Amino acid sequence: MPQLASYLCGAFATGKGEMVPLLNPATEEVVAHAGCGGVDLGAALRFAREQGGPALRALTFAQRGELLAKLASTIADHRDELIETSVANGGTTRGGGKFDIDGAAGTLQAYAELGKKLGAARELVDGEPVLIGRGAKLAGRHAWLAREGVAVLINAFNFPAWGFAEKAATALLAGMPVINKPATATAWTAVRLAELLVAANVLPAGAFQQLLGGVGPLLDALGPQDVVAFTGSSATGTTVRSLPALLRHGVRVNVEADSLNAAVVGGGVEPGSSAWQTLLRDVVREMTEKSGQKCTATRRVIVPEALVAPLVEELADRLGALKIGNPANKEVELGPLATRQQRDDLHAGCARLRKSCEVAFGVERPATLIDVPAGKGFFAGPMLFVARDAKAVDETHRDELFGPVTTIVPYSGAPNDAIALVGRGGGMLVTSVYAEARDWCETVAKGIAPWVGRVCLVDSKSEGITLPPGMVLPDLIHGGPGRAGGGEELGGARGLHHFMGRTAFEGPRALVERLFGAGT
Amino acid sequence: MPQLASYLCGAFATGKGEMVPLLNPATEEVVAHAGCGGVDLGAALRFAREQGGPALRALTFAQRGELLAKLASTIADHRDELIETSVANGGTTRGGGKFDIDGAAGTLQAYAELGKKLGAARELVDGEPVLIGRGAKLAGRHAWLAREGVAVLINAFNFPAWGFAEKAATALLAGMPVINKPATATAWTAVRLAELLVAANVLPAGAFQQLLGGVGPLLDALGPQDVVAFTGSSATGTTVRSLPALLRHGVRVNVEADSLNAAVVGGGVEPGSSAWQTLLRDVVREMTEKSGQKCTATRRVIVPEALVAPLVEELADRLGALKIGNPANKEVELGPLATRQQRDDLHAGCARLRKSCEVAFGVERPATLIDVPAGKGFFAGPMLFVARDAKAVDETHRDELFGPVTTIVPYSGAPNDAIALVGRGGGMLVTSVYAEARDWCETVAKGIAPWVGRVCLVDSKSEGITLPPGMVLPDLIHGGPGRAGGGEELGGARGLHHFMGRTAFEGPRALVERLFGAGT
Repeated sequence: MPQLASYLCGAFATGKGEMVPLLNPATEEVVAHAGCGGVDLGAALRFAREQGGPALRALTFAQRGELLAKLASTIADHRDELIETSVANGGTTRGGGKFDIDGAAGTLQAYAELGKKLGAARELVDGEPVLIGRGAKLAGRHAWLAREGVAVLINAFNFPAWGFAEKAATALLAGMPVINKPATATAWTAVRLAELLVAANVLPAGAFQQLLGGVGPLLDALGPQDVVAFTGSSATGTTVRSLPALLRHGVRVNVEADSLNAAVVGGGVEPGSSAWQTLLRDVVREMTEKSGQKCTATRRVIVPEALVAPLVEELADRLGALKIGNPANKEVELGPLATRQQRDDLHAGCARLRKSCEVAFGVERPATLIDVPAGKGFFAGPMLFVARDAKAVDETHRDELFGPVTTIVPYSGAPNDAIALVGRGGGMLVTSVYAEARDWCETVAKGIAPWVGRVCLVDSKSEGITLPPGMVLPDLIHGGPGRAGGGEELGGARGLHHFMGRTAFEGPRALVERLFGAGT
Repeated sequence: MPQLASYLCGAFATGKGEMVPLLNPATEEVVAHAGCGGVDLGAALRFAREQGGPALRALTFAQRGELLAKLASTIADHRDELIETSVANGGTTRGGGKFDIDGAAGTLQAYAELGKKLGAARELVDGEPVLIGRGAKLAGRHAWLAREGVAVLINAFNFPAWGFAEKAATALLAGMPVINKPATATAWTAVRLAELLVAANVLPAGAFQQLLGGVGPLLDALGPQDVVAFTGSSATGTTVRSLPALLRHGVRVNVEADSLNAAVVGGGVEPGSSAWQTLLRDVVREMTEKSGQKCTATRRVIVPEALVAPLVEELADRLGALKIGNPANKEVELGPLATRQQRDDLHAGCARLRKSCEVAFGVERPATLIDVPAGKGFFAGPMLFVARDAKAVDETHRDELFGPVTTIVPYSGAPNDAIALVGRGGGMLVTSVYAEARDWCETVAKGIAPWVGRVCLVDSKSEGITLPPGMVLPDLIHGGPGRAGGGEELGGARGLHHFMGRTAFEGPRALVERLFGAGT
């Protein structure tokens, strides 16, 4: 059985901390042990800051991009093996595992290409030089330079590969060394990934390290040049952001948190239409992919009252046809949740929702589970709730149910009502808008935007063109205000800014223009 | 004697809180009373969010810019009167008062012009549309939209006009209503300014309010669409940032804090040269303007050992010739500090510095003070310290002495030593580099940049061209990492981003391009 270890200061070592068992969530069998803690964090920080950082900053963007391309191809070359650990330790279907692994490789590759495009520079200029005052002899210019600390990447259990890759791709391309902290419950994929990346021997010493176990002492030792990039629950994000050591030193903290993402239907969408078909595809996909354990999954479907009955009927048909069970069986389409705690939290949330919603489809634990030992596994059946009173219900706008569950919220169909309901979620990573009428679409898209990090538009010409809203893209920002954490990741070059500092250079024009060249 | 009042919900009212006496810091006479607290903060927040915000967001950038132009001209029209309050309540010389008032009008005017340039739009597009995937049918685009909350502006005692104007110009142009919180000790200028702006009747109802007294309860009531823009000490900035209500709701907090700004001399600068003359001008200006009470003032002068003696001699000559006293006398060039507390804090800091530094010039309280009653006034003499051992001394890199005081830190002249010494300040708003050799200048400028918000370059061709480093410019960012607060203000359109949220719009190309037009 694998003994999983941290990779610090250039070596895998289990440390002197406790050994934590990792389970197969479909069978509850122990599949690996992770050695957590008992390591020298001070040495790891010095290794990153004193060796990894200077080595990365000495490279051009193009050279850093070449490293990312090699990381991407290393992952692609070992795709099947990584999918296996994802199924065995994460409880994902093969499709869910691919989504994570391919997402990781794709994101690294996208940033490899950005590095190539940014070329021989080491800093990102920000705009053209501006002339100051009369006479045109004094100028100013802004540029982003890599921070001189370490980027601590804290990832959630649901995307051990992709979550790491989107943070590492941007940090490394920016010129910052990383210490990755995977979630312990699903750390097998993260550790296997680390072993592959280390074996590929691509990165300079100190550029990549990985820590299993508690991250608190590491965070307490950070300073003003360091960065924390966190993905996880809104509550844990607030805890991280509130750590006195981080606040005292002004450590930059980026939080990407689960949120009450919505799908909004209106503007003339009719059952059976093209936009309707896309809606059905998206809702089922977002409810079931990775068993609904995605921070971008759709938690609320805001639908004109007249469409509730046909929507429930069609969704129930599709959800009822799903094969649920142990994803080691390749026919299975919906696996278990990742941990006992996730399952218990979800079912507690369902009990709260039952008070203000009707259950239109599903049960907490399906009676039939394929290839699962009796009574075992952290399973949750797909469930469709319908809010009795869209305005009175609080739970569906407040409690994130992190599983294959969504709530249909009936409303009038008026744009302002749709906007108000979306806003009640308090800040979302993504919201999708399904409409035939372009004015309706535009009004709602701009009206909800202050509450949403990414707005996905679907109309009658979208079938087969648009991607499901839960798909995070390297060229578009991933994050959202308020409840969603108030942070941002990715978005092309925007994603590098979190790992760099912006400085204004001011002085005689010739001197300023000499620093980064006269123009971009 | 003036009774100063908050301006909330469209009316000036002293509220039911305490009356606080405001002093003339040169004479300790009471010049006004401020009515602090005892007001309905909930009503003020609703007024801003429900009336001010929607009214501003309904305007285009050009229209918002027109409002700013009228505010700028209102201030310019009442310049002399505002300078008078600045002298009487702030203890500034007329020159120091002008710096604040003209800075306020100039910043508002600069953003008025930016509004005109941004034209008929209400949102800021961020980059061109990007095509996603193969087939070029799916596109994404980023745009900044105004946040739907209120911007709470917390300003320091030293810039009651400019500090307000730089925050208000950016917030109002972005489309956010403001509640300004001036420092109580120097609130007379802020209140007179508010009276003038209200009398000009330019802004929509709810767009501008002002609160005297404690801001804590207001901050506790903020939510995810609100913004706090703070200027003040690093310690108070950390306190604000650490408020649980702000952390829980992910309220955006921008901190601009005092810091240990440096001037670095090297790269072949000789006494008597052009760069040397600019250095002398800058150091004296930054030590004495507003009695050194500027967050951008130069606290450390990092100088090759061989230049210490001639630098001390020339600075002492200039500082020794200053006329110090009551700035009501127009001959006075250096006034008192703003409050008793500021004076006591400064003198405590001088006592600490005396342990590791020589006093090369000056005393804590000058013997001769023009037009000052015996023993009265919060005076501090200009003082020049020289660190005995640049590497051993901690105080000069750690303690900000907020007054007409600076420390000369001798060093080797090597770029890496200069960079390391600058970095010991832990994050600066501004650092100026005086060098003849362009390579030396470039190495040091880029080397210190991760620690500095704005780097000012001076060479042999700078005389009469460059501005003193303490001058904040609307086109360049104002802020800095770590100790300097980790925030940013101004920087042209960059300054609007703090009051807006960035959203990615994704969908069929035609739909995405329709939202904001096909190109910029």
